[in-house]
Amino acid sequence: MTQILGRRIAAEFLGTSFLLIAIVGSGIMGERLSGGNVAVALLANSVATGAALVALILTFSPFSGAHFNPAVSVASAFQGQLRWNDAPFYIVAQIAGGFTGVLVAHLMFGLPVSFSSQHAHSGAPQIFSEFLATFGLLLVISLGSRFHSQAAPYAVAAYITGAYWFTSSTSFANPAVTLARSLTDTFAGIRVADVPGFLVGQSAALAAACVLCRWLLPPELSGESGTNR
Amino acid sequence: MTQILGRRIAAEFLGTSFLLIAIVGSGIMGERLSGGNVAVALLANSVATGAALVALILTFSPFSGAHFNPAVSVASAFQGQLRWNDAPFYIVAQIAGGFTGVLVAHLMFGLPVSFSSQHAHSGAPQIFSEFLATFGLLLVISLGSRFHSQAAPYAVAAYITGAYWFTSSTSFANPAVTLARSLTDTFAGIRVADVPGFLVGQSAALAAACVLCRWLLPPELSGESGTNR
Amino acid sequence: MTQILGRRIAAEFLGTSFLLIAIVGSGIMGERLSGGNVAVALLANSVATGAALVALILTFSPFSGAHFNPAVSVASAFQGQLRWNDAPFYIVAQIAGGFTGVLVAHLMFGLPVSFSSQHAHSGAPQIFSEFLATFGLLLVISLGSRFHSQAAPYAVAAYITGAYWFTSSTSFANPAVTLARSLTDTFAGIRVADVPGFLVGQSAALAAACVLCRWLLPPELSGESGTNR
Amino acid sequence: MTQILGRRIAAEFLGTSFLLIAIVGSGIMGERLSGGNVAVALLANSVATGAALVALILTFSPFSGAHFNPAVSVASAFQGQLRWNDAPFYIVAQIAGGFTGVLVAHLMFGLPVSFSSQHAHSGAPQIFSEFLATFGLLLVISLGSRFHSQAAPYAVAAYITGAYWFTSSTSFANPAVTLARSLTDTFAGIRVADVPGFLVGQSAALAAACVLCRWLLPPELSGESGTNR
Repeated sequence: MTQILGRRIAAEFLGTSFLLIAIVGSGIMGERLSGGNVAVALLANSVATGAALVALILTFSPFSGAHFNPAVSVASAFQGQLRWNDAPFYIVAQIAGGFTGVLVAHLMFGLPVSFSSQHAHSGAPQIFSEFLATFGLLLVISLGSRFHSQAAPYAVAAYITGAYWFTSSTSFANPAVTLARSLTDTFAGIRVADVPGFLVGQSAALAAACVLCRWLLPPELSGESGTNR
Repeated sequence: MTQILGRRIAAEFLGTSFLLIAIVGSGIMGERLSGGNVAVALLANSVATGAALVALILTFSPFSGAHFNPAVSVASAFQGQLRWNDAPFYIVAQIAGGFTGVLVAHLMFGLPVSFSSQHAHSGAPQIFSEFLATFGLLLVISLGSRFHSQAAPYAVAAYITGAYWFTSSTSFANPAVTLARSLTDTFAGIRVADVPGFLVGQSAALAAACVLCRWLLPPELSGESGTNR
Repeated sequence: MTQILGRRIAAEFLGTSFLLIAIVGSGIMGERLSGGNVAVALLANSVATGAALVALILTFSPFSGAHFNPAVSVASAFQGQLRWNDAPFYIVAQIAGGFTGVLVAHLMFGLPVSFSSQHAHSGAPQIFSEFLATFGLLLVISLGSRFHSQAAPYAVAAYITGAYWFTSSTSFANPAVTLARSLTDTFAGIRVADVPGFLVGQSAALAAACVLCRWLLPPELSGESGTNR
Repeated sequence: MTQILGRRIAAEFLGTSFLLIAIVGSGIMGERLSGGNVAVALLANSVATGAALVALILTFSPFSGAHFNPAVSVASAFQGQLRWNDAPFYIVAQIAGGFTGVLVAHLMFGLPVSFSSQHAHSGAPQIFSEFLATFGLLLVISLGSRFHSQAAPYAVAAYITGAYWFTSSTSFANPAVTLARSLTDTFAGIRVADVPGFLVGQSAALAAACVLCRWLLPPELSGESGTNR
């Protein structure tokens, strides 16, 4: 069982690393090549991130469920899909994976590791945007993937590709991703000073989504019947 | 049963809200970033709307069928897929959801809520375009999703992504969406004065699609055998 | 039986009409909005055509197989998937549908129906390109859809989206589409003088694909055992 | 059995040929039309390659597994999915198919066959990028397609579309593709001098992925129980 937990943790670490490589790497490439047209860069960034998510969720979901996101792991624990005892291991693996992914992306593009982003994402609309982005993501995962498990990778990836465009914050929607992106001063970066606001918005969305899903889902699916996996 | 209807109405309200957030939000973002190249903005808008539809239909279809569109609800009632008694609740939830989505998108992007669009969509070709867009959408839903229910979310989303480009009106194809978009003076807006023409085109398409489907579908699938769900 | 053939013919007519609306309409819209960047216009055109194909094949395949293409109908007859007696009705419906689609697209965009394109597609490389495009399409349909029938709509649509870019002729790969596109002097047009070369390339590909599939497919799937549907 | 091996080899040859036509052809078209905006050209190139891969894998996987890549064939042999005796035939077919595809693409676009690319891809970050690109691809194929075989074509295609953007080398991730692309002095080319570094990175990734998969996969799936197909 410990060994099995080891494999699950490895899957979360690897998957979150590759997710950050995809986000940060495609942001660097998009910005370099787009000649100043930010829409073209974001189109590349959003299509590449969504495409990577399809591949990564299909690859790692048989091992760990392919959360890559502390908010998803906590919501899963709340709904009885993940043991509460395992959640801290998942979250540490996701945060470590995110940091590793940013480092690897910088190495691969021959960039110094600055560890301080200058990209501002401040103000109440941005925090509200993160609330909305995370709330929607958790509904997609908690409801969509419960009834259409085969389609879940496409639903999640499509949601993120869309939400890059339809939210004003470009939809981080993930505390591990938010922390990791504060380490890069490239297209996908976020100022350290703006991280707490994002985490507040994401946490509020986690609470709201759990309450809504408990009402929408029938009792036998909403986690009231205990914790199992 | 009332409680179950409540959940279905909530799903239509939430889904249509997010659909309008996706349409209006990605339109704002696309226009802001594309430096005046309208094709790049519409590419972002069409890809984001289609991607959001994949996620939203997969998320809410187990609850309400994920219509998000009064024309779809009426066609479903006509074909025996929705009780006529439930249709008014669906339609009110869709219209309220659409208005809410536009409001939320404006808040998230820090824009005032102007409640009056200046985007002209007038003339007979535009009305014919809405007829065509809605007629095609209803065929995709009534025929495609009847025989390939697993693939329906992809069929509908792909149709809308394509129809943004292949119709001269950019394919509203939805009375609730048309009403809601008259409230925003951004990329996705439509002048109030042009709304009635769009609704006429969409209604004519509803009638034409119902007649065609009754002929194409075998009697046991065409709704002649009564109303049930 | 006659009535059932009527429904199949209607499905081919409607599907091919919408396919031409998608090709010609998204070409007009892409050219109008892209400010002279042909790559952006072709990106819109290729994404919209592929997306429309996903929706149209899912919608009409339960009725007629969703060929929308005389080369596909003849290959199907050769492989025992379509009665030879039905093939002429299919082909007439496809050609009539293609002409209708071009007319409808012009009406919808408020354009005169010129009936003469000036877009040159001449030279041996273009004819070779049509050979290649059609050969690949017929392999995808004859082999891919035989073993993965659920995935066929995505395989065909993805092939066409890709082939718009990887062939020098932008991959018409369809005699009915070629004839219809000679009627429009817009982005998707082709000079009447260049049509015969395209038809020669497409016909040669039809012969080559049928021979290759007869070798690759086991006898019980290659149509040697007679004609049935 | 020999004849069956013949069909499998033919499928690898045809599939790899079409893959190179897609990569090189869409690169030429993208560069010609994009008016100097390299991001738009790469967007076309990445979308076209991914779309082609969906179609090609669905078409040829029933015959040969649709490897189109010596690294995939060796990893498959290592994991007991391909007989070691068959691997050399696969690899020769892939390399010959790649060369043929480049030739065909040049003919189709009316270009001379130069046989010497000037596109530089040198330096340690590029080699590291190829390590990463290939490592990720082999995880997607070895893990993802083992548990979700129906979804494998989409996972692989999505990975490649994303990796064109998120790796600094634009993700060749395939020795046969690398060799073939050294023959074209177009958008997708690579200098012959830079090929060995790419092959080193790809080979190191093959070793790393095989070790990781042996640990992650349960013994009955990791190839320890012998070689069969």
